[in-house]
Amino acid sequence: MARIVMKFGGTSVADIDRIRNVAQHVKRETDAGHEVAVVVSAMAGRTNELVELTRAASPMHDAREYDAIVASGELVTSGLLAIILQSMGVDARSWQGWQIPIKTDGSHGAARIKEIEGERLLERLAIRQVAVIAGFQGIGPDNRVATLGRGGSDTSAVAIAAAIAADRCDIYTDVDGVYTTDPRIEPKARRLSRVSFEEMLEMASLGAKVLQVRSVELAMVHNVRTFVRSSFQAPDAPGMDDFDNPPGTLICSEDEIVEQQNVTGIAYARDEAQISLRRVRDRPGVSAAIFGPLAEAGINVDMIVQNVSADGQYTDMTFTVPNADIDKALGALETVKEEVGYEAVQSEAGLVKVSVIGIGMRSHAGVAATAFRALADRGINIRAITTSEIKISILIDDAYWELAVRTLHSVYGLDKV
Amino acid sequence: MARIVMKFGGTSVADIDRIRNVAQHVKRETDAGHEVAVVVSAMAGRTNELVELTRAASPMHDAREYDAIVASGELVTSGLLAIILQSMGVDARSWQGWQIPIKTDGSHGAARIKEIEGERLLERLAIRQVAVIAGFQGIGPDNRVATLGRGGSDTSAVAIAAAIAADRCDIYTDVDGVYTTDPRIEPKARRLSRVSFEEMLEMASLGAKVLQVRSVELAMVHNVRTFVRSSFQAPDAPGMDDFDNPPGTLICSEDEIVEQQNVTGIAYARDEAQISLRRVRDRPGVSAAIFGPLAEAGINVDMIVQNVSADGQYTDMTFTVPNADIDKALGALETVKEEVGYEAVQSEAGLVKVSVIGIGMRSHAGVAATAFRALADRGINIRAITTSEIKISILIDDAYWELAVRTLHSVYGLDKV
Repeated sequence: MARIVMKFGGTSVADIDRIRNVAQHVKRETDAGHEVAVVVSAMAGRTNELVELTRAASPMHDAREYDAIVASGELVTSGLLAIILQSMGVDARSWQGWQIPIKTDGSHGAARIKEIEGERLLERLAIRQVAVIAGFQGIGPDNRVATLGRGGSDTSAVAIAAAIAADRCDIYTDVDGVYTTDPRIEPKARRLSRVSFEEMLEMASLGAKVLQVRSVELAMVHNVRTFVRSSFQAPDAPGMDDFDNPPGTLICSEDEIVEQQNVTGIAYARDEAQISLRRVRDRPGVSAAIFGPLAEAGINVDMIVQNVSADGQYTDMTFTVPNADIDKALGALETVKEEVGYEAVQSEAGLVKVSVIGIGMRSHAGVAATAFRALADRGINIRAITTSEIKISILIDDAYWELAVRTLHSVYGLDKV
Repeated sequence: MARIVMKFGGTSVADIDRIRNVAQHVKRETDAGHEVAVVVSAMAGRTNELVELTRAASPMHDAREYDAIVASGELVTSGLLAIILQSMGVDARSWQGWQIPIKTDGSHGAARIKEIEGERLLERLAIRQVAVIAGFQGIGPDNRVATLGRGGSDTSAVAIAAAIAADRCDIYTDVDGVYTTDPRIEPKARRLSRVSFEEMLEMASLGAKVLQVRSVELAMVHNVRTFVRSSFQAPDAPGMDDFDNPPGTLICSEDEIVEQQNVTGIAYARDEAQISLRRVRDRPGVSAAIFGPLAEAGINVDMIVQNVSADGQYTDMTFTVPNADIDKALGALETVKEEVGYEAVQSEAGLVKVSVIGIGMRSHAGVAATAFRALADRGINIRAITTSEIKISILIDDAYWELAVRTLHSVYGLDKV
């Protein structure tokens, strides 16, 4: 007997037939004797419809009203799943955010969960009633509905798992786990059976879009063992009821990962643009002067590389922004040219960032050197490099991106079982 | 300054443009300095969609889950109207049933309002914030969403008007008031400026489908002055802001109706079928023996006529049922033939019930005789008659129904101003 939270996204509950499939997954777990709470998103497309209505009502609108409107989609799916579970003989009831309650802060439209009172849920779980919870929402300090921002149902699921001390939080999605790299690029990519929270955070923010970044952060803080698995696999397929090793990827603390690899995966992000400021006067405050206006313009700056200046007076500063924002970024830089005192701006769009991720690289030297040598052997020019403890990111020309991903995937042995 | 509740149904909020029109009606009242609470239905068609989803999930379903699903439509419209009002510079916020709260009994799917805590609404109204309230719903003793049954938003509006001691409850609909009869049948039909609660109850249940019967009952009990008016009239049309006599029909207590007419209106109900049991043994319990099985079969019996038996032993019993139910009714009667001991059954489908309604007939003799004479002059045969204090209902052949409605409308002078 265990306590499990299961989360199903919009495509998994897109119509009645798919909700029936979800119910079969739930029934498999209740049949095994587990206590089950389920978190559901709105039917695919419904949230977008509601957002459109809200925008049509007024481009500028009260975030509290936006929340009241947009949160209604999950109320429908939670009720429907409860009905279908009941029709299959599984005791179930739907829960709305205010009924539990899931308490959030007052940042309507992008609220953060502050506290979940788990007592009522636990009472019902104890009598083996499935709790079907509307995802993406709670109530703010003003006693009004607050939504967690797009994709917030992942966060709801992890937060509920923490609140009821669940043994596991299963995130059902349209992929069957986390891979060593994108299988569309490298057919030899393998599904990871385990990955650490830290690695997953780097992978999620780098483009392996499986889980919302915030939900991984939350899982890490509360040490919620989170399984990524497929909702489209047959609910009764072999091994689906294997409690310890179901098909999918377990995201967990690194203590649980016995055989730590040096490198766990290769991620990438396309459509990057590089901007270099030449001969920037190297004095305190210059970074703030450059990046302040970019932040105000709503531009998401990614890699930042600054070399130690050779003469102590001038330095070069390189960073990347999304391709689509390059003109806006150059415009913003133009306005601060005087203040920053750079000599020239160079920019180049259509670049790709490839990242090597692995918690094991902390204790192994030479991981970076291996990457650089492998790329050089293929004639791939490296434009910029940034590193963190568990990640090396390399900026290259778009033409080489697939080759780079496959080369790195191979050089670290990720294509070997 | 007055306190007003305004209610808008599904067709009045069917899309963003219509919700804008609703907002103009609201703004007219706030501009006049009134405190305003608005009750809205779901966008036309949305509730049906949600009901269909619920049925598709399972034909048999938990009414509490049905309520959670179906009540979501009103959350969307209340939020949208609040946003549009704000964009027009009118302070407004949406309220969900549980936030007020509107407390109901536990009859999910057809709940009755038990209590509305008006304090929070009154605080906001006092600072001239418009309260936009999701109609059709409240919360039951189990702290779960409960709906009031189809058309329940009328009831929500009247109940809120009672709870906050509103001066008036304006029900905006797709007709511009209550008429002396159906204007499609009798072009000379006039809009009534006032009608008593009692008369409205008879009219509503007889087919003049303007207002839900339950809401009229509630208005009568709490003496809520209720205006029926059109949401499709231009919000700034002449007289729309006349507080005492806006275009529409005021439903009120009879004390407020100064010049009481003998007859107020002519209603009708088509598709009636008549069933007569001949030579029924006249003994205690025979009515129960006849109508019990019909009730169990879910058949709605309307007119019931029983003559005093001439010989004290046998009587004839006549009643009407909907055309569609006649076979089911005859089948149910066949099963109790032995017990009831009737000699023969006669039935006739395709009949029409025409009713003369008027609170003034209580104190005026001859109202019924006038009807009978007028119909006889036109050669219309009367099949059966039932009467109450304020209503005379006459069953006739379908061929004559329009002639009968026009004849009665004219004979009581309803076509004259």
